[in-house]
Amino acid sequence: MKLDKGKIQKYTTISRDVEDRFINIHPIQRGGVLTPEAQKVLIAYGDGYSMCDFCFEGRIDMIEKPPVRQFLQDLALFLDLDEVRVTPGSRTAMFITLKSMMKPGDTVLLDSLAHYSTYVAAEAAGIKIKEVPHQGAPEFALDLQAYRTKIKEVKKETGKSPALLILTHVDYNYGNVNDLSVVGEIAEEFEIPYVVNGAYSVGIMPVSGKKAKADFIMASGHKSMAASGPIGVLAARAKWSEKVFLKSKVVGDWSGRKFASKELLFLGCSPCHGAPLATLLASFPAVVARVEHWEEEVKKARYFVKEMEKIEGIKALGRQPKDHTLIQFESGSFHQIAQKYTKKGYFLYNELKKRGIMGVHIGMTKHFKVNIFGLTWDQVRYVANTFQEIAQEQN
Amino acid sequence: MKLDKGKIQKYTTISRDVEDRFINIHPIQRGGVLTPEAQKVLIAYGDGYSMCDFCFEGRIDMIEKPPVRQFLQDLALFLDLDEVRVTPGSRTAMFITLKSMMKPGDTVLLDSLAHYSTYVAAEAAGIKIKEVPHQGAPEFALDLQAYRTKIKEVKKETGKSPALLILTHVDYNYGNVNDLSVVGEIAEEFEIPYVVNGAYSVGIMPVSGKKAKADFIMASGHKSMAASGPIGVLAARAKWSEKVFLKSKVVGDWSGRKFASKELLFLGCSPCHGAPLATLLASFPAVVARVEHWEEEVKKARYFVKEMEKIEGIKALGRQPKDHTLIQFESGSFHQIAQKYTKKGYFLYNELKKRGIMGVHIGMTKHFKVNIFGLTWDQVRYVANTFQEIAQEQN
Repeated sequence: MKLDKGKIQKYTTISRDVEDRFINIHPIQRGGVLTPEAQKVLIAYGDGYSMCDFCFEGRIDMIEKPPVRQFLQDLALFLDLDEVRVTPGSRTAMFITLKSMMKPGDTVLLDSLAHYSTYVAAEAAGIKIKEVPHQGAPEFALDLQAYRTKIKEVKKETGKSPALLILTHVDYNYGNVNDLSVVGEIAEEFEIPYVVNGAYSVGIMPVSGKKAKADFIMASGHKSMAASGPIGVLAARAKWSEKVFLKSKVVGDWSGRKFASKELLFLGCSPCHGAPLATLLASFPAVVARVEHWEEEVKKARYFVKEMEKIEGIKALGRQPKDHTLIQFESGSFHQIAQKYTKKGYFLYNELKKRGIMGVHIGMTKHFKVNIFGLTWDQVRYVANTFQEIAQEQN
Repeated sequence: MKLDKGKIQKYTTISRDVEDRFINIHPIQRGGVLTPEAQKVLIAYGDGYSMCDFCFEGRIDMIEKPPVRQFLQDLALFLDLDEVRVTPGSRTAMFITLKSMMKPGDTVLLDSLAHYSTYVAAEAAGIKIKEVPHQGAPEFALDLQAYRTKIKEVKKETGKSPALLILTHVDYNYGNVNDLSVVGEIAEEFEIPYVVNGAYSVGIMPVSGKKAKADFIMASGHKSMAASGPIGVLAARAKWSEKVFLKSKVVGDWSGRKFASKELLFLGCSPCHGAPLATLLASFPAVVARVEHWEEEVKKARYFVKEMEKIEGIKALGRQPKDHTLIQFESGSFHQIAQKYTKKGYFLYNELKKRGIMGVHIGMTKHFKVNIFGLTWDQVRYVANTFQEIAQEQN
């Protein structure tokens, strides 16, 4: 088969207008929408190696112009931990943490609502998992005290404690917010390092590593910190620095080449150059400011749930009242309506799109997820009214 | 220590004008300069998850709108291999290849001019390295036939053949271009899978996986394919697909959750959403076209070397005549001049910057590297004349 040079021209004309022409309620996109400041630097730092103009040490975290080094220190202050690196996404940060803190065959304890990438990162690192259960519908709440029982269970089964505890601060299905310090206390009691996955919290709501008694926090630039992707954040306590930011020791057997300043699991220098890192910097002041208005976002979420539940057959899942803007709805009534359509899965998507709203997954009718973070009150009201209008039109 | 909310405002004003106001001859940046098409989609796809509006299978490589799936097939045709994935940089592609194709303790044979990240990726994957030597100054040429001897050496020392051969198509120090098929023949003869690192070649010069007899090719979007970073490319022969694109098998012990469609070493779905992937698509037709003009680029490189060597004490390193636009110069004369300056390492940088040229590393005077890929003939002449002018001013 040969490359068709005519046909490939289409790649130059891909376009996207979701943010310009629609209200976007996509469950994973709201916290990553760029700030105006980020949009500006996006152009300036669009070239891949744009951060490396003045790189003297071969490490992106040490660059001083633009002030990456200073920024990472400020980010550590923001997260209330000691040392920070960037990675190409929080899943990579999780993989690095697991790989550096554990040996193959060790067991990690994780919440059963964890993001799939936590499971996959453990598998890739050769690590056994043990889940902390959650309740059933409609709340799907985790029993955080069960970390205690599960630690004992692992000890009984394998002869040693889990090497790490992981808690997902906010899960990606129900948007339940967990009290980080509960597991932090348990981690302290059993002396097991404690990892918080803050992909759905850091950057939109306040998170303190010290208060949580966390040893590590993962965060996601493109998920919740108004950055272009892909970029993740790995924050750690100083006592783990040498371990997680382990330096390369390889020596060329013939040449004697070595790379002693390069961090091993970051493969030397984390490839987060350019736009992702520049936008993370540029959005940072806005991100620091916005987490202080989290209560207002929660109010909007609760209002939105109240309005949505006025529609017959619509029910918000997860713990109520909501503490987060990511919301899953059970929507038996919309599902019934969709059955009348030839392209069933498109019913809700099309009806919303006609009215200027995007972000509900095509194909989702029995359940669907939305995120209303960062919408204005007017937009929240408009979205709720639109769902009501669609329902009324059909009943 | 507390976060200073006044001081962090500075992150919103970072700026960069290297591409707008200067001729950029940075050794690692020329091939990554965005095309106009890429600059356009950069804005449209700036948000981190912008590629995921219509994701139905939870895998970025399967997205059809924009046409990512089709693009990756076209990219495979371009590379003349069978299957392609994107990764957050070619070093990650190397790590994934090593980790999937080898067991800890296995030995990989690599060229001693390989990028440092190849060494570090092997170390991170728990793999022993054996180097194929290169000649000394000024050519630093690899003896490709030595792969044969080294395979036998490994067999003698460890009782088994190396599990993989790696050859860096173009090395990052001297820009020497290796004949890929020489090692391809050896790989075939000894039945050892063969990995080509094309970070400095794929996207600027023609590369054919089949002609090279390669099993894998790594490429870099931000290094040589006019894409915003970070994005790497991993191309493989179909016979290795199951191995390198291995699916996740982990099962939640309590929940029974599994993620059987997710690719293990990509941690589920490679986090290359948004700008990096969109710009890779948008630049692709231009990239396909430009590799056909590689001979003209080589002519410019040879002209540039000839002009530079007119300066007393300047000598191009690496094999001559040049076959690549990445050039390292030995520059004893500039080094001598620099000694007269208080800020020695800034001498060449400042003199060039005054004249509208950026990209020579500050601190480099004894040796320095440039890349002239994609400069017009006028720009090449101007850069060469400028170096001559600086030399004349000092002599």
